[in-house]
Amino acid sequence: MSDLARNIKGAFDYLPERQRVRRDIVKVLTGTFEKYGFSPVETPMLNYLDLLASKYAGGAEILKEVYSLQDQGGRDLALRYDLTVPLCKLVAMNPGLSMPFKRYEIGKVFRNGPVKAGRNREFTQCDVDMAGADSLTAETEFLAMTSEVFDRMGLPIRVELSNRKLLSGLIKRAGIPEEKAAGVITSVDKLKKIGRDGVLKELSESGVEEEKLLTLFDLFELPFEDLKNAPVDPEENPLLAAGIEELSSLFSMLGAAGCLDKIVYAPHLARGLDIYTGTVWEVFMTEGNVTSSIGAGGRYDNIIGKLSGGRDIPAVGMTFGLDVIYAVLLERGTADKGTETELFVIPMGTEPQSVALAASLRREGLSVSVETVKRKMKKSLDYANKEGIPFVIILGENEAESGKITVKAMAAHESREFSLEDAAGIAAYVRG
Amino acid sequence: MSDLARNIKGAFDYLPERQRVRRDIVKVLTGTFEKYGFSPVETPMLNYLDLLASKYAGGAEILKEVYSLQDQGGRDLALRYDLTVPLCKLVAMNPGLSMPFKRYEIGKVFRNGPVKAGRNREFTQCDVDMAGADSLTAETEFLAMTSEVFDRMGLPIRVELSNRKLLSGLIKRAGIPEEKAAGVITSVDKLKKIGRDGVLKELSESGVEEEKLLTLFDLFELPFEDLKNAPVDPEENPLLAAGIEELSSLFSMLGAAGCLDKIVYAPHLARGLDIYTGTVWEVFMTEGNVTSSIGAGGRYDNIIGKLSGGRDIPAVGMTFGLDVIYAVLLERGTADKGTETELFVIPMGTEPQSVALAASLRREGLSVSVETVKRKMKKSLDYANKEGIPFVIILGENEAESGKITVKAMAAHESREFSLEDAAGIAAYVRG
Repeated sequence: MSDLARNIKGAFDYLPERQRVRRDIVKVLTGTFEKYGFSPVETPMLNYLDLLASKYAGGAEILKEVYSLQDQGGRDLALRYDLTVPLCKLVAMNPGLSMPFKRYEIGKVFRNGPVKAGRNREFTQCDVDMAGADSLTAETEFLAMTSEVFDRMGLPIRVELSNRKLLSGLIKRAGIPEEKAAGVITSVDKLKKIGRDGVLKELSESGVEEEKLLTLFDLFELPFEDLKNAPVDPEENPLLAAGIEELSSLFSMLGAAGCLDKIVYAPHLARGLDIYTGTVWEVFMTEGNVTSSIGAGGRYDNIIGKLSGGRDIPAVGMTFGLDVIYAVLLERGTADKGTETELFVIPMGTEPQSVALAASLRREGLSVSVETVKRKMKKSLDYANKEGIPFVIILGENEAESGKITVKAMAAHESREFSLEDAAGIAAYVRG
Repeated sequence: MSDLARNIKGAFDYLPERQRVRRDIVKVLTGTFEKYGFSPVETPMLNYLDLLASKYAGGAEILKEVYSLQDQGGRDLALRYDLTVPLCKLVAMNPGLSMPFKRYEIGKVFRNGPVKAGRNREFTQCDVDMAGADSLTAETEFLAMTSEVFDRMGLPIRVELSNRKLLSGLIKRAGIPEEKAAGVITSVDKLKKIGRDGVLKELSESGVEEEKLLTLFDLFELPFEDLKNAPVDPEENPLLAAGIEELSSLFSMLGAAGCLDKIVYAPHLARGLDIYTGTVWEVFMTEGNVTSSIGAGGRYDNIIGKLSGGRDIPAVGMTFGLDVIYAVLLERGTADKGTETELFVIPMGTEPQSVALAASLRREGLSVSVETVKRKMKKSLDYANKEGIPFVIILGENEAESGKITVKAMAAHESREFSLEDAAGIAAYVRG
């Protein structure tokens, strides 16, 4: 097999050093999700192809990247490419769910596409959604939760926040005709990445007058307070009026919830053309070299209803980027790579006494390994060093007879003698 | 989509009520694995088909059940059907791993086979393995860990324990010729399920003399101490001598580790023909109606070396059955289905004050939800009741003005008044 031992492109093994960090990120995420009243669900990765190929807001783009396969009965199956379609399916299949349905799911999704930086063929999504929520308290809850997630991780963030109704209203106010709006939304969504010139260039061939785009850019520069204080005729520009009102209420709730300091008004933000209908946000680091978003979300009031059989189901949801958060922690050197094992017991002809000692130390709550390879003591110590296990006990026949053992602190090169029976004392020493 | 909203056979949605229990089982497993020095890894689900189809101890049987598919480049891929091949691949790809390599992986595997009770097409395996361990302290560590896992879950278990060398040695002592041994091993492995008559019937056509099988059954009945004290010529029956010696050492270490009370000697146990080479065990409940094993493991000294390129790598590993443990907890009524949410805040025209209150309660560590649906108060209370949220605060405009709020204990039908600022007092009340 050795020549067969390789991974497909865009799919990775996570060895302990890396997986421990991913595990800890997931722990913070799930702990915080649950503190905000979200519950875990798990959905299948394998689905009928017709479910995943059904008309979905994600559009045809994503369907090209579906891994399809057949079962033994010749039925067409496919691997899920996101966690949203499975959520819609679950809501459709369980009409008795009480609303709001607040669930999180952390799991693998698959994309049969070209592999680029940041685009893998198998990766983990961390999604939190609230189906059935029609109040802006929902958005407030998500943004408060986002703030707490990154506080817990010790990461300084900024949240770029906008509202799709506001964006459409601003496009109208700039005098851009409605039939051009979709193209403008798609282009200004990339404003930060491609700049004003990039947007102008992209839209130059679509017949949107440059002057109107410059007006739009000026509107983007206007502080939200100024926009709010300028008169809007709700008859003439109902989306702008609604967008301002929603964002204004949201800002005051975010202030009350104590997380307004991280929020930045970013009116160009759309998060794609098709899914979102109201509030949208993206989360970025305020320090370091990772410039892509580490989380994002928004209100999508149409998809679940459309996909789950006609009922209108408003919803807010967001996703956290496991791999990009890992990259941030690694860059900051706060990725804890150490083994959990606190103490390593090396038996030298004293296997029964060693496993008994390990059992007594574990009863004190210590994480303990016993040597399971027959090798020279030096090799056992090398192993403990390489694994970064901080404490070692070598239990030879003399120690077993005398009942006196030495606990070595590997990094400090110091050691202390204990009675073989004194598990509590050893545990206290190990814990410092 | 509503008519498309269904799952494939043998794959399931786990709604919160069920998923919370699965999450808690996984928490106990991973917490205990780490306490015994095992570290997490994650491996891809998608692999090259040739890796999964390579000669593997699992044999042709399992290869019939591989889901295969192609990527956009026409490469042949497949979904993993276990976590052992990915482990072998990982060891082969990382020759610098220090040994013993102690890893656990909990993840989905896929089988494209007929769906029967207990056989799904997509299910979660919980595997713990130690590669490179050549001492019986390894088995002792696994069995001590097994004991702790089920103690933590409050489940009374019995571990049926044997050794493959011992079984082969007993077959030889019964006078059964070596060329018949494989068939006998496969059949007696099912002794508990099909009984002596079943074994006799199964083997009647294979030319094994019934008298010799009856001798073997008698040998199985012999207490291990008697077997140990009877003379064995290591020249004439080296496997029997080795099996007795290994099992004898293991029993004394298990005694020293304090977990012998759960061990039952079960010499007929083989755990399949091909994989295991020494110690084998299966874990069963001693109470209740679940009769299938809830965990199992053993020593397999050949597979990893064979599959990872020739180095000889002894190993011990085991698997825990997530779904069957769930079934046991459900049967015992110890499956905790409750929401994590401790308190529900219902704003009545007081959204900013309500999110501020929620923020202050969360700072006290409470798990809090804020109502996010605009509806009548009665409906909000019904929701809290249905979700089983134990405490509710209705924050109306009067409460916001007076600064006095009432915390309702839903089940007890009692309530208590607090100052709106007294988050610590409310948290103490909620925590009882």
